[in-house]
Amino acid sequence: MLKPHEPPIQELASKLASLQGIDRASVSLAEIDQSTESVKVSIEGTGISIDGVRKALEELGAVIHSIDEVSVAKKTR
Amino acid sequence: MLKPHEPPIQELASKLASLQGIDRASVSLAEIDQSTESVKVSIEGTGISIDGVRKALEELGAVIHSIDEVSVAKKTR
Amino acid sequence: MLKPHEPPIQELASKLASLQGIDRASVSLAEIDQSTESVKVSIEGTGISIDGVRKALEELGAVIHSIDEVSVAKKTR
Amino acid sequence: MLKPHEPPIQELASKLASLQGIDRASVSLAEIDQSTESVKVSIEGTGISIDGVRKALEELGAVIHSIDEVSVAKKTR
Amino acid sequence: MLKPHEPPIQELASKLASLQGIDRASVSLAEIDQSTESVKVSIEGTGISIDGVRKALEELGAVIHSIDEVSVAKKTR
Amino acid sequence: MLKPHEPPIQELASKLASLQGIDRASVSLAEIDQSTESVKVSIEGTGISIDGVRKALEELGAVIHSIDEVSVAKKTR
Amino acid sequence: MLKPHEPPIQELASKLASLQGIDRASVSLAEIDQSTESVKVSIEGTGISIDGVRKALEELGAVIHSIDEVSVAKKTR
Repeated sequence: MLKPHEPPIQELASKLASLQGIDRASVSLAEIDQSTESVKVSIEGTGISIDGVRKALEELGAVIHSIDEVSVAKKTR
Repeated sequence: MLKPHEPPIQELASKLASLQGIDRASVSLAEIDQSTESVKVSIEGTGISIDGVRKALEELGAVIHSIDEVSVAKKTR
Repeated sequence: MLKPHEPPIQELASKLASLQGIDRASVSLAEIDQSTESVKVSIEGTGISIDGVRKALEELGAVIHSIDEVSVAKKTR
Repeated sequence: MLKPHEPPIQELASKLASLQGIDRASVSLAEIDQSTESVKVSIEGTGISIDGVRKALEELGAVIHSIDEVSVAKKTR
Repeated sequence: MLKPHEPPIQELASKLASLQGIDRASVSLAEIDQSTESVKVSIEGTGISIDGVRKALEELGAVIHSIDEVSVAKKTR
Repeated sequence: MLKPHEPPIQELASKLASLQGIDRASVSLAEIDQSTESVKVSIEGTGISIDGVRKALEELGAVIHSIDEVSVAKKTR
Repeated sequence: MLKPHEPPIQELASKLASLQGIDRASVSLAEIDQSTESVKVSIEGTGISIDGVRKALEELGAVIHSIDEVSVAKKTR
């Protein structure tokens, strides 16, 4: 994911963890460029809305670069 | 597995996890080509139908390249 | 183990897991040749008959190349 | 994080662990320079205030260089 | 341990596991020579007799090459 | 930590473990020089006094070279 | 530790495990020389006497080369 230097990653993580259907969010710095930072985001939850995540991140100025791994389990499990 | 850029891997994972006999499905990107993506899929369940999986994936435009590992346990265990 | 391209490994695993005295069977691809595949098989159980395994595999056209590791525990344990 | 040679890392760790909302603090030396030390700090807690942490560290003469990873979980979990 | 190609390792493992004072025996192939195989054997038990093991192995045509690690615990533990 | 060849590390470990507030002490050799040994010490406890540790070590002729990692948890945890 | 080829390591391990205050003893071969073997010994117990260990080993013709790591915990733990 690419984001400008602001907001800091703790704000991204707090924002994501506050979304409905998300239980936990982790954000770590991958690369720092002159005007942008590349970060890795992982989220866990029982009802994650990718569109909700994308929208929340865009409100903070960040853009999803790629989704590298998705794991889905049946609720009844 | 080879798939076109659409649909995204979160849709593949959700689709597979929704199939009968499958408890959990994970999809991760392996390689991205100009028009296709190579992804790794792993599924767990108590009654997986390989044909059902193949059919569901083909409906989404994806083709199984190879099945690399299979583990089967007796139900009575 | 060497086997022709048919049957696929999921059939081998299912067949082995269905044998008496076997609780779990895993089969993974090691090498793919023009007409044969080299696969690794591991089986667990409380009463494995190596001859039963060999016979079942031969019925599917596969030949045991070598047995690399065997672990045996006393039943009373 | 950069800090002068004084105070020692055990004081930093004690100070951080004493802050409200922090359950555990670890500090390890990364690099030692002529007048400063680069240290890694990791903190866990149920209500961490980054500003409180920054203020506490500055009182001890240390400056946060970067925040590399943040993980946030919902309280209701 | 050196052994001729016969008997196969599954027989060695079964034989060792059947000895008094041995709970579990594992045998794995290390090297295969023209007329002999070098195998690794590990055994667990509450009353292992090294002489009993040596005798059982010699009856099967195998010779202990070296004992590389021994661990002994007090019974009262 | 630097120490002369005497006392041996088992005495250092016993001494440290006997201090108030220390539950466990481990000492391992890192380098052996002509007249000194460099050792690594790790201690765990619920009320470690660094000054008490330094004093105890100095009584045995050893000098703390550096403290590389400190982890502190709140008692109420 | 250096020891002559006799006694074998299983005897060393049994001897050490039989000493008062020792719960478990492991001996593994490190190097084999023309007339001596270098072995690694690790012992666990609630009241290990290093002098008792040294004496028992010397009775078997072995000499402690170095003690590389010692860990001591308070009994009340």
